[in-house]
Amino acid sequence: MANSKYEYVKREFEFHRHLPASNWIVVRIDGCHFHRFSELHAFEKPNDDRALRLMNACATSMLEKFPDIVIAYGVSDEYSFVFREKTEFYKRRESKNISLCVSYFTIVYGMKWKDFFPNNDLKEPPYFDGRVVCYPNINTIRDYLAWRQVDCHINNQYNTCFWALVKSGKTEKEAHQALKVI
Amino acid sequence: MANSKYEYVKREFEFHRHLPASNWIVVRIDGCHFHRFSELHAFEKPNDDRALRLMNACATSMLEKFPDIVIAYGVSDEYSFVFREKTEFYKRRESKNISLCVSYFTIVYGMKWKDFFPNNDLKEPPYFDGRVVCYPNINTIRDYLAWRQVDCHINNQYNTCFWALVKSGKTEKEAHQALKVI
Amino acid sequence: MANSKYEYVKREFEFHRHLPASNWIVVRIDGCHFHRFSELHAFEKPNDDRALRLMNACATSMLEKFPDIVIAYGVSDEYSFVFREKTEFYKRRESKNISLCVSYFTIVYGMKWKDFFPNNDLKEPPYFDGRVVCYPNINTIRDYLAWRQVDCHINNQYNTCFWALVKSGKTEKEAHQALKVI
Amino acid sequence: MANSKYEYVKREFEFHRHLPASNWIVVRIDGCHFHRFSELHAFEKPNDDRALRLMNACATSMLEKFPDIVIAYGVSDEYSFVFREKTEFYKRRESKNISLCVSYFTIVYGMKWKDFFPNNDLKEPPYFDGRVVCYPNINTIRDYLAWRQVDCHINNQYNTCFWALVKSGKTEKEAHQALKVI
Repeated sequence: MANSKYEYVKREFEFHRHLPASNWIVVRIDGCHFHRFSELHAFEKPNDDRALRLMNACATSMLEKFPDIVIAYGVSDEYSFVFREKTEFYKRRESKNISLCVSYFTIVYGMKWKDFFPNNDLKEPPYFDGRVVCYPNINTIRDYLAWRQVDCHINNQYNTCFWALVKSGKTEKEAHQALKVI
Repeated sequence: MANSKYEYVKREFEFHRHLPASNWIVVRIDGCHFHRFSELHAFEKPNDDRALRLMNACATSMLEKFPDIVIAYGVSDEYSFVFREKTEFYKRRESKNISLCVSYFTIVYGMKWKDFFPNNDLKEPPYFDGRVVCYPNINTIRDYLAWRQVDCHINNQYNTCFWALVKSGKTEKEAHQALKVI
Repeated sequence: MANSKYEYVKREFEFHRHLPASNWIVVRIDGCHFHRFSELHAFEKPNDDRALRLMNACATSMLEKFPDIVIAYGVSDEYSFVFREKTEFYKRRESKNISLCVSYFTIVYGMKWKDFFPNNDLKEPPYFDGRVVCYPNINTIRDYLAWRQVDCHINNQYNTCFWALVKSGKTEKEAHQALKVI
Repeated sequence: MANSKYEYVKREFEFHRHLPASNWIVVRIDGCHFHRFSELHAFEKPNDDRALRLMNACATSMLEKFPDIVIAYGVSDEYSFVFREKTEFYKRRESKNISLCVSYFTIVYGMKWKDFFPNNDLKEPPYFDGRVVCYPNINTIRDYLAWRQVDCHINNQYNTCFWALVKSGKTEKEAHQALKVI
């Protein structure tokens, strides 16, 4: 607005990238240092029902807030949001897509925390990273979701075994050793 | 991890951009729909002291959390964070820089809200967008900060006059009219 | 190879962009300052048969050299080359795609020149710019080709009328005036 | 121009990247399959004086044609062109910078070939790839040139020894073996 001699810093250095049209847009959000965060807040292992329901509640808020999201899929402390192929969400500007999604998800996580952990105050701020990826057709977006689903299954299988061993008396190191792929 | 046939969706479509070395990195955060948010939460006009101090408190947390930030400057509902020229913050990956900063700022805003607005519950989630810009030397980064400062001054001057007129009995439309550049 | 202390200049500043998979890749080549070049070499107006056949001969060489090109379409001093959706041409690296296509086209243009203009030495070097665009599906690539075709038709129609007027005795300025859209 | 319903293919898919201001721009050109090309045209080993002088002549033409190039440095079949920090060459559009440089270099190489190889017709088209890299200050651009110079020295030293061994009667395989770093 201020039309000063300094405005060149925007014009000459600040570039916007637009995501190409006719591509499904995935914004994937992932908890940052959630290993530590989950210990600090005494999450149950291998799966904390309250934590998973909180993630799902945040995802539900996302779908209500951003109607161009057509499907969402979550695993552990990550969630993928798929925007429909033709979305014009913030003119498909990449940094807007990443930042608004991760910001909204994060604040809802904070605001809903006490609904799921009523006796458990936040000891440090939970926060997330985000990235955006474009998929050009229905097959590749289907395979994206299959990829996350396989990853969920493998990790969950491993974690279930790992924590069963730990609960049965093994140390974490021994449990890792026992489950190592030979 | 799962090494499935679906992993190509990552390899062939998910690209990381790295910010070039020897550049100062600015992450600028900006409130989304804060005009509405400030009305909903009855911010005082032209400047709400509590809201500005909350922004500053969030910025302080950012500097404690991310020591590679060397200076931060805020105006209204925006804040710029300057990472030092040589930072290796998340290997200078662009989407990590944007998303982690905006996510952390947002959650701290939510968690500190009640410290500054003790009698004023959050009626809707505050959230922010973010972007990242690189500046190659000390002159351009200085001019970047001067640009934001000029913008702050101009907007503040306008808002001070605008709200003075409104408080003196003019409608918002009349106040805008009176301040129009001829 | 030399593993010197200077190699950081590559690692920290030289980034490769890969074109996303499952997209048709278009490399479009366009003559640089060909208005001047065509005058200097006395191209016939509105269409110089020798010049068009030379462009086509270069395009034919391109298809022989780069078998991943599935279709090519040319207009005046430009040519579009469509690489098949699944091509792994130079691992889909953007700068390789642009530069190798434009370089090969240019050298063939130079080497074949005397076949089409036997009595007409090159007075200055002909050269071309290039760009690359990705299209995610068959509809958008079809529309891309339709776009170039419409452009060809419109320009050709205009040029045919323009040069007919000039040959009938009008100045170039008068001809432009006569054909102006009101 | 044609304002047809197909123009969306440009607007929605064709994006221009601008190189950031206040950076030195390097365009580096490199011969494609020049190992084969140099054998086919019987280049002398380790260094063919005619071929090197042809590369230098092309570089000289580049500097005359594009006055924003401030220094150029060549090694074997590659050449680096450094545009001055403030250049507005084609508005710093990346694809224009790469393609016009590589195209002009290539055509001059073809046109000047017979000046340096008068008895040696081109048996196949010589062509080059190109890339662009930005360096934010005088130290990094200096180190870029030092990097290429070290690379030149190391390769030249190796090639000089290698071809001395070959000329003394060893096979190429034996020569490689003899020079292997232990």
